[in-house]
Amino acid sequence: MILILGGSGYIGSAYVRYFEKRGIPYRSLSRRDVNYYEPEQLISAIDAHQCEFLINAAGYTGKPNVDACEIHRAECLLGNSVLPGMIRIACEKTKTPWGHVSSGCIYTGTRADGCAFTEMDPPNFCFRTNNSSFYSGSKALGEDCLADSPQTYIWRLRIPFSHIDSPRNYISKLLCYSRLLDVANSISHVDDFVHASYECWTKRVPFGIYHVTNTGHTSTSEVVSLIQKYLHPDRDFRFFENEDEFMRTAAKTPRSNCILDNSKLRATGIDIPDIHTALERALRNWQSST
Amino acid sequence: MILILGGSGYIGSAYVRYFEKRGIPYRSLSRRDVNYYEPEQLISAIDAHQCEFLINAAGYTGKPNVDACEIHRAECLLGNSVLPGMIRIACEKTKTPWGHVSSGCIYTGTRADGCAFTEMDPPNFCFRTNNSSFYSGSKALGEDCLADSPQTYIWRLRIPFSHIDSPRNYISKLLCYSRLLDVANSISHVDDFVHASYECWTKRVPFGIYHVTNTGHTSTSEVVSLIQKYLHPDRDFRFFENEDEFMRTAAKTPRSNCILDNSKLRATGIDIPDIHTALERALRNWQSST
Repeated sequence: MILILGGSGYIGSAYVRYFEKRGIPYRSLSRRDVNYYEPEQLISAIDAHQCEFLINAAGYTGKPNVDACEIHRAECLLGNSVLPGMIRIACEKTKTPWGHVSSGCIYTGTRADGCAFTEMDPPNFCFRTNNSSFYSGSKALGEDCLADSPQTYIWRLRIPFSHIDSPRNYISKLLCYSRLLDVANSISHVDDFVHASYECWTKRVPFGIYHVTNTGHTSTSEVVSLIQKYLHPDRDFRFFENEDEFMRTAAKTPRSNCILDNSKLRATGIDIPDIHTALERALRNWQSST
Repeated sequence: MILILGGSGYIGSAYVRYFEKRGIPYRSLSRRDVNYYEPEQLISAIDAHQCEFLINAAGYTGKPNVDACEIHRAECLLGNSVLPGMIRIACEKTKTPWGHVSSGCIYTGTRADGCAFTEMDPPNFCFRTNNSSFYSGSKALGEDCLADSPQTYIWRLRIPFSHIDSPRNYISKLLCYSRLLDVANSISHVDDFVHASYECWTKRVPFGIYHVTNTGHTSTSEVVSLIQKYLHPDRDFRFFENEDEFMRTAAKTPRSNCILDNSKLRATGIDIPDIHTALERALRNWQSST
C-alpha cells in the first residue's frame, strides 16, 4: 500500500490518476485525515494502512504564483521546509521508505562551466546564496531538513506541464500571460515525472536526490512556437525585452530559470522522454478547459 | 490581560514571576491549552481572555545546546521561524499588539567600522550570509516572517543570565563547562530583559526592533573573574586557545559572539542597567541549585 500526502494538489492528483489507472493499491491521506505536522499521527496512519512506501506531494506554492510566498512566509516555511522534516521523523521511526517532491527551482542559470546542474551541485538560488525568492529558499531548506535521511528519495521537479489545461500547467500559463520572458529551462511533463519517480521505488534504485526532468532543455520562445504550431491560439505572444524589464514591471520576487542534468536518473535505467517529444505529446493531446 | 506563550520556558517563566510579583493580570497559555500553530485557536484564546497585549516567549533552543538544532532542523524552523509568523496572523486579525522574544545571535563580531550592531544593521549570522548555525538562521527567518508586522515589538535577547542557577543561565554554563572560549559579547540579565521589554508596552514606545541587552559588553574571562571573586568555585577555568580549537574539539556548529548597541532602547527613556552592575548583582544574590 502506497500512502500519498497532498493527493489533491497538482502533482499529487497526477500520482492518484497514475495509481488508479494501473490498479496500484494506494491511499491518499488528506489534511482532514491526519495533521501532517504531527509525526505521531503520521506514524499511526502508516501503521494502520501497512504503508510500504510514502509519497509527499504536499507543499506550499503560493497562489496565483510564487510572489504570494513573499507575503505568506510562515505558511511557506511550514509547508515546504518543516513538513518534509516531520515526515522524515515519521518515516524514520517506522522504517518506511519514502519520496519527497522537491523542486529544481533551488538553482538558477547554469554552472560556472556552462554545464547543466547535477545533483552534486549545491543550490545556488536559496537563502544561503541570498538571491532567491522566499519560495525557492523554503524548498532548499526543506532539503536541508532531509540531509542524510535514510531510505528517502528527493525528486526535483521543474516547471510542470501536461496535456491537461490547468492554472498550474506551464503551457496554460504561457497561453494566458500577457507578456513572456524568453529564458532557457529544464521542464517536467507531469506524467513523466510521476512515472519516473515511482519507478525509482519499483526498481529499487539507490535512495538520494534525482533531477526528474525531461531530457534536454527548452526556451519560452521554443515552447511558444510549438503552441502556435499545435494549438493555433487566437493571440500574439509578446516578450519582455529582458529580465530587468520583467522584474521591474511584472514580478515581485526573482524567478529561478535553470537547466538540470537528469543523467543520474537515466543511468539507473529509468526512461524519461526527451523534452521535445514530451512537449509535442502534451500539445497533440491538449485538453482545453475552456 | 496579558497573554504569554512559552510561559514555562526560561524566559517565559521570568515574565510569569515578574507579573506575579507585581500583581499584573496575565495568563500563561500552554501548548496544552492551544495549538500554537493554529492561528484560529490563538484568535479564540485572545478573544476569550480579552487579551490586550501578547508576549511570545516560546521558541526552540535545542538541548543541551544549539548543536541539537543541527539535528532537529524541522522542529527548530517550526518553533523559531514559523511560530512568530502564525502569532502575527492571529494578532493582526484581532488587532492585538504583541512582543516577540527574538535573539541577538543573528549577528557575529562587530560591524566593519568596529562599532556595535544597531537595529538598522542587517543580520550577518544567518542563512542569508551562509555562515550561521541552524539555530541562528531559524531566528533570523522568524524575524523575516515579521517584516512590516504592525503593532509588534521584536526584542533581541543575548546570552541570558540571572542570580538563579539553571542549565540555561550563562553563569551556570561557565561554572560547569570544562573549557571556555574567551570572546566579547553583549549579554542580558533575564530580569532586566523582562522589565525593559515589558516597559516597551507600558510606556507605549514605538513598535519595532529593540536590542534588549545590558549596556556595554563583557568577555568570558571578565565574567570568570567576577565568578571567582563572588562565588569562589572550587575549580580552575581553562580556556581554548582560539575559536579554531573550540570548533575543532567542542562544537558542531559556529556560535554567535557579538556586541549589540542598546541605545535605541535607552533613547525611549527605558532604563537598563550597565552590564557590570547587572553581573555583580546576579553574583551577589547567587542561588545555587546544588
